[in-house]
Amino acid sequence: MSVETRIRADLDVRDQFPALGDWHYLDSAATAQKPQAVLDAIELAYGRDYATVHRGVYQRSSDMTLAFEDARFALARYIGASANEIVFTRGATEAINLVARQLPKEGRGRVLVSALEHHSNIVPWQLAGYQLDVVPLTTDGRIDLDAAEGMVSEEHRVVAFAHVSNVLGSILDARRAADIAHSKDALLLLDGCQSAPRLTVEVAEIGCDFYACSGHKLYGPTGIGALFGRHELLQSMPPWQGGGAMIDRVSFESSTFLDAPARFEAGTPHIVGAIGLHAAIDWVEGIGRAAIHNHETSLVAATREALRRTNSIRLLGPEDSAGIVSFEVEGVHPHDVGTILDDAGVAIRAGHHCAQPLMDVLGVPATCRASFAAHSTLNDVDALVDGLNRVQRIFGNG
Amino acid sequence: MSVETRIRADLDVRDQFPALGDWHYLDSAATAQKPQAVLDAIELAYGRDYATVHRGVYQRSSDMTLAFEDARFALARYIGASANEIVFTRGATEAINLVARQLPKEGRGRVLVSALEHHSNIVPWQLAGYQLDVVPLTTDGRIDLDAAEGMVSEEHRVVAFAHVSNVLGSILDARRAADIAHSKDALLLLDGCQSAPRLTVEVAEIGCDFYACSGHKLYGPTGIGALFGRHELLQSMPPWQGGGAMIDRVSFESSTFLDAPARFEAGTPHIVGAIGLHAAIDWVEGIGRAAIHNHETSLVAATREALRRTNSIRLLGPEDSAGIVSFEVEGVHPHDVGTILDDAGVAIRAGHHCAQPLMDVLGVPATCRASFAAHSTLNDVDALVDGLNRVQRIFGNG
Repeated sequence: MSVETRIRADLDVRDQFPALGDWHYLDSAATAQKPQAVLDAIELAYGRDYATVHRGVYQRSSDMTLAFEDARFALARYIGASANEIVFTRGATEAINLVARQLPKEGRGRVLVSALEHHSNIVPWQLAGYQLDVVPLTTDGRIDLDAAEGMVSEEHRVVAFAHVSNVLGSILDARRAADIAHSKDALLLLDGCQSAPRLTVEVAEIGCDFYACSGHKLYGPTGIGALFGRHELLQSMPPWQGGGAMIDRVSFESSTFLDAPARFEAGTPHIVGAIGLHAAIDWVEGIGRAAIHNHETSLVAATREALRRTNSIRLLGPEDSAGIVSFEVEGVHPHDVGTILDDAGVAIRAGHHCAQPLMDVLGVPATCRASFAAHSTLNDVDALVDGLNRVQRIFGNG
Repeated sequence: MSVETRIRADLDVRDQFPALGDWHYLDSAATAQKPQAVLDAIELAYGRDYATVHRGVYQRSSDMTLAFEDARFALARYIGASANEIVFTRGATEAINLVARQLPKEGRGRVLVSALEHHSNIVPWQLAGYQLDVVPLTTDGRIDLDAAEGMVSEEHRVVAFAHVSNVLGSILDARRAADIAHSKDALLLLDGCQSAPRLTVEVAEIGCDFYACSGHKLYGPTGIGALFGRHELLQSMPPWQGGGAMIDRVSFESSTFLDAPARFEAGTPHIVGAIGLHAAIDWVEGIGRAAIHNHETSLVAATREALRRTNSIRLLGPEDSAGIVSFEVEGVHPHDVGTILDDAGVAIRAGHHCAQPLMDVLGVPATCRASFAAHSTLNDVDALVDGLNRVQRIFGNG
């Protein structure tokens, strides 16, 4: 391991995660463990502070409404948007479905995606009746933007790309993607699930039109996520779900609706989800996304360096993967790798990672994936490497 | 107050609600406070036990998957359904929207609702393109089932009624409603938000086809709710949102989907929401719904008896309202009532309660609503009555 690597992987926040103990949790790309600050915020919100929002005339409800709307401001600031451009959703999946279903097609019936997309950025478009065109990957596993440039056309309503691949960790040049989309007046939607926890995102600077992210992958609660949409685009979208809190006036003949984002938030929202997400954002900002990204990049480099020394391991994805190392162990099914590692106290993900089409491209049924977070350490990397040595001894190719 | 009333309001669980202190919380119909057992379950699920579901090959993820699916079994048992008939949703609002959008219309373009429905049982049907017919209320504020019997026709795909009114507390004769719906081969959907926390619900015995309920009104977390649908009906409904966890096989040309309920649960679910809801159900069952309902009924009777003695208060809804007392104070806007009560440490709801059409029927812009829960006491009722006396002194009509 290079001195530089060792020096940079120096974040020391592990003791803020009470659930980790000596567990080597390398599945943060699936869901993040929660720091104490988030656990505390959730406990207060369900306890001492609990009340409904937007409706109560009593103090605790007014306070809760302010806290809920503060969460919207915090998320807006976090990605360089305005609060009226943030719709709270159940997660990134619902955010993308909302765009796919409600964005007027304007006579365009196609969406340009890439070969590495998560199912949540494929199936919603199919269900909404779009035809997909698929941008191939470069040999090191990035979305091939040169190819995208040649493929985008005036038939595409949306260009929908993962900002960071959940399998390969490849980072998109999002500004260039925006330019490519806009060259044909298509809109750019970024699946930000893996970028929100580690990259500094400024939607206006990128020029993206929609950005979807998930709370539970950002050290926050489950059941909460968000859609950023440029305000005029959100305003152009009719309501999706009807109910309380999204209406202006209801009668049995017809009803009228509030402006975005309220229009898209029918029913009592996931109040504590939003408040917990706010705590998570504050926690991440307290450390700094650049610090987290650098830390994880060092761990990725250390992992790749160590695994490269092992004959029977094939590394996937680019060298500068953001927080993720996907690999195969020759002759061993990823599920077996995952199970043996589990016995050694190392949790990785083995499977198709909700990206079956990418597995087809890679020519594998599944991969092993180790993914890092702010709390990960070189000790976790060592445990992974030791565990993989054990896998190889068991399967006789060590 | 009658001796009988005093004897029956005897549940003593207030000390299990750490957030109450000496606060007189009478807004449980908007959202329920959480007992310690639920707070503990949420803390464990986000802490020591936290992992994703349905995907991980490691132990903690398998355990979490079992806990998540156990929550589905618990909710199914709680309402007399099978686990494969329970779809986890963000809340009751999403549950009703899911039916409105995805249930094949079978050539029927109308839905029969009642005049007391919550917006969440009106607007989804409108957005899905149904015409509404509106069953009137009896003079004491129940859905007039005699009228419904004469109104239902073969043009109605669904009869959609509140099981318990969120404004008036009126309890529906759900079995009769099912018979009425089925007499013309329409389906019965019950909005169970207010019945799930207090009435013993057996969907098979009732004969209802869909039942929607909300976790946060059932002493559980925010952001979680559920739809019960008879399995063959759920199977007849195409997927709504696309993404991970609901697919069988994804390709860029086309995708295939899992059976219900997984088909309707795209993306990482609200894992901790389901687990917290399970704890809430266990807590309610530990006390017993009959005991809770009897307790609340006594409090309602005591409240109505006390308020009836006051000249300037008009009581709304039937005598046997389930846990809810709606009223007007002559000459005082409900918001002013709510604000003065808040100063006295009493939290009620003042507004249209997401039931604007019912306000039109009642001929008021808004009502005051006091709503009870298992933790409510006669002391809360006394505080409400004292506070209302103060309102009347302030407004000079006491």
